Amino acid sequence: MAVNLQAPDPAALRPVDGVELGYAEAGIRKKGRRDLMLMRFAPGTRVAGVFTQNSFAAAPVRVCRELLAGRGEFRAVIVNAGNANCGTGEQGMEAARRTCSAVAQVLGCKPEEVLPFSTGVILEHLPVDRIEAALPQCAASLKAEHWADAARAIMTTDTLPKAVSRSAKVDGVEVSVTGMAKGVGMLQPNMATMLAYIATDAAVSREILQQLVREVADQSFNRVTVDGDTSTNDSFLLIATGRAGNQEVGEAKGPSYQALQSAVAAVAIELAQAIARDGEGATKFITLLINGAANQEEAARVGKAIAHSPLVKTAFFASDPNLGRLIAAIGNAGVQDLDTGKVDLFLGDVQVIDRGERAASYTEADGVRVMQPPEIEVRVELNRGAAATTVWTCDFSYDYVKINAEYRT
Amino acid sequence: MAVNLQAPDPAALRPVDGVELGYAEAGIRKKGRRDLMLMRFAPGTRVAGVFTQNSFAAAPVRVCRELLAGRGEFRAVIVNAGNANCGTGEQGMEAARRTCSAVAQVLGCKPEEVLPFSTGVILEHLPVDRIEAALPQCAASLKAEHWADAARAIMTTDTLPKAVSRSAKVDGVEVSVTGMAKGVGMLQPNMATMLAYIATDAAVSREILQQLVREVADQSFNRVTVDGDTSTNDSFLLIATGRAGNQEVGEAKGPSYQALQSAVAAVAIELAQAIARDGEGATKFITLLINGAANQEEAARVGKAIAHSPLVKTAFFASDPNLGRLIAAIGNAGVQDLDTGKVDLFLGDVQVIDRGERAASYTEADGVRVMQPPEIEVRVELNRGAAATTVWTCDFSYDYVKINAEYRT
Repeated sequence: MAVNLQAPDPAALRPVDGVELGYAEAGIRKKGRRDLMLMRFAPGTRVAGVFTQNSFAAAPVRVCRELLAGRGEFRAVIVNAGNANCGTGEQGMEAARRTCSAVAQVLGCKPEEVLPFSTGVILEHLPVDRIEAALPQCAASLKAEHWADAARAIMTTDTLPKAVSRSAKVDGVEVSVTGMAKGVGMLQPNMATMLAYIATDAAVSREILQQLVREVADQSFNRVTVDGDTSTNDSFLLIATGRAGNQEVGEAKGPSYQALQSAVAAVAIELAQAIARDGEGATKFITLLINGAANQEEAARVGKAIAHSPLVKTAFFASDPNLGRLIAAIGNAGVQDLDTGKVDLFLGDVQVIDRGERAASYTEADGVRVMQPPEIEVRVELNRGAAATTVWTCDFSYDYVKINAEYRT
Repeated sequence: MAVNLQAPDPAALRPVDGVELGYAEAGIRKKGRRDLMLMRFAPGTRVAGVFTQNSFAAAPVRVCRELLAGRGEFRAVIVNAGNANCGTGEQGMEAARRTCSAVAQVLGCKPEEVLPFSTGVILEHLPVDRIEAALPQCAASLKAEHWADAARAIMTTDTLPKAVSRSAKVDGVEVSVTGMAKGVGMLQPNMATMLAYIATDAAVSREILQQLVREVADQSFNRVTVDGDTSTNDSFLLIATGRAGNQEVGEAKGPSYQALQSAVAAVAIELAQAIARDGEGATKFITLLINGAANQEEAARVGKAIAHSPLVKTAFFASDPNLGRLIAAIGNAGVQDLDTGKVDLFLGDVQVIDRGERAASYTEADGVRVMQPPEIEVRVELNRGAAATTVWTCDFSYDYVKINAEYRT
């Protein structure tokens, strides 16, 4: 079902010096599928992350926040699919900590050097014993070349694993940037969450790594939406092993920072787009360009009002140029004092709205033509300022309802 | 498909002294269906209204706002289905005004005494000539007993007409309150909008009528949502002919005001619930009670976050107690500093969440049981203040996608 998306070619994914990946079948929710993923990092590896804004943040998210506030260097990440460990109270916090201890024991590091992640059903207690039982096998499979296999182990309702690589010249040294993500909606059936892990062998200071992860999240994962629901477990981690031999990137400017930022952003944007391409039931990949907003917040409001409108999304599914729904969504964005008489709207190369009303040149035949392709670009010109944003989303099909209504049956 | 909703019994709808209703087939979008509705009011009839907050308010909404700002007494309302007259620029404004002039000519009143309404496809120009041609027939059918027939003439994708009556004792006099509404979502396929008209023969001052319409809208239509999209044409009109013989209701307190307010609110709430019961593709009618919020705005945010979550709505469709989605939606409401450890959640008589986590007493069997009925009540206790609200909504089914994806084909 995914729109112009293929499974990553393992040979095209660059190993990152200092990062190994392993996986196992722990049987957390269902038997016979990979649902446990372990990443081991070389000593001195720095990690920074951004997490869900949902008030009901899951136990592992709360543990990660605590751990990341206390230290910058970590030795491992453990991820389970099938259970979100959310809405599980103090017992859930203990389950997450026990998982970290189990990993520390297997790898010979400290429990506080292990970051835990969960994705899956909310409101069920995490079967830590199954994770403990599968960890030795998981550790035995650790390998630097396992990115594609590891990406498959964190999938829930994803139809394809998502992993991407780039390289960059930093301080004259070639560094690798490789990442993986899962997610086919901001929140799925039982299967919650977007998770993303991007690693580089570049040396980066702790402060700059934290800045980089926020900056890149705003350019990538924060711009993608499938259904508008923010999961309780969303997490994006940026990992820097520092083994490439470059002089440490210690400020947020200059050619080294720019080169690294570009490579990390390119990986994150491709992963974010992959999430929309693999959106539950998706048949179309939609890029929304919002220009001429008074500020960023306003641009984002308009983009998300369009991206979250079930009526806009079902029109895309039907390839029906029912484009009045687009102006209704823009009008519904809550932009203060929007002068609708200045708004222009384009689908691909076709102008639909000219200064707030149907463009004289617009024809139904043009509308039908531009609604056909699997990839569609919508451009909104608000003509009230210089701020702009991009949002990636997908359409809304029978299969979205099917996947979400019939998941547990 | 509608949930526990039946067509109104014409004999149960009280005529309102001073209000006559007519209808016709104008062929505005499709032939062979009623799509034009006219209401004629006795001299001295006062009207107050509330309208959509959508920035792209339709031409008739803008004309109504102008007219209502200028005067309080009106002689007629004209409503067409099939075309929203929205996104149509100055030509659309002229079309709305021309419609008013045509009505004035047929009825022998002034154009500015006629309020125009449209519902249907956005971005198409209104065929005023067809309205003009059908008006004489429409006027010839004017009758005080025509509420049920008139309610059918304003339908778009509604499966049933919606009309409700109450009576009240005001100043010792029995007054009638009868209303109709259309709408099966805040915004439908091509078929936009919620429209509601409630009339009474009670005598009410202009100021109090305006206060009453706002107060009642907040208790009824502003609490119902199908898909979260706010239409460009939403309108709610309250009409008072003043012919019942009561002493004019001139202040917003006292037994006369209370009696009238109760009757109008009862009609509006039943019509609002009818909209959710007839929500596009609806198979379940959901009542959300949000208690213990710090303020009204916060209570509404939580209610709408639940009501707008596609994942919550598909779980209701599937009768699947996938209740983690409810806490994810609450956590996604953007309530500042929400202490999730204080949140309780009940489905019917079953406690699902106890102080932020899965209730010890909760069982999957209980969840399955309470998700079965066609009417489900969800109660959220935020335990942070005294504000409360109620939101009515419906589930999200294959048929929602079908209706919205296949409407024009």
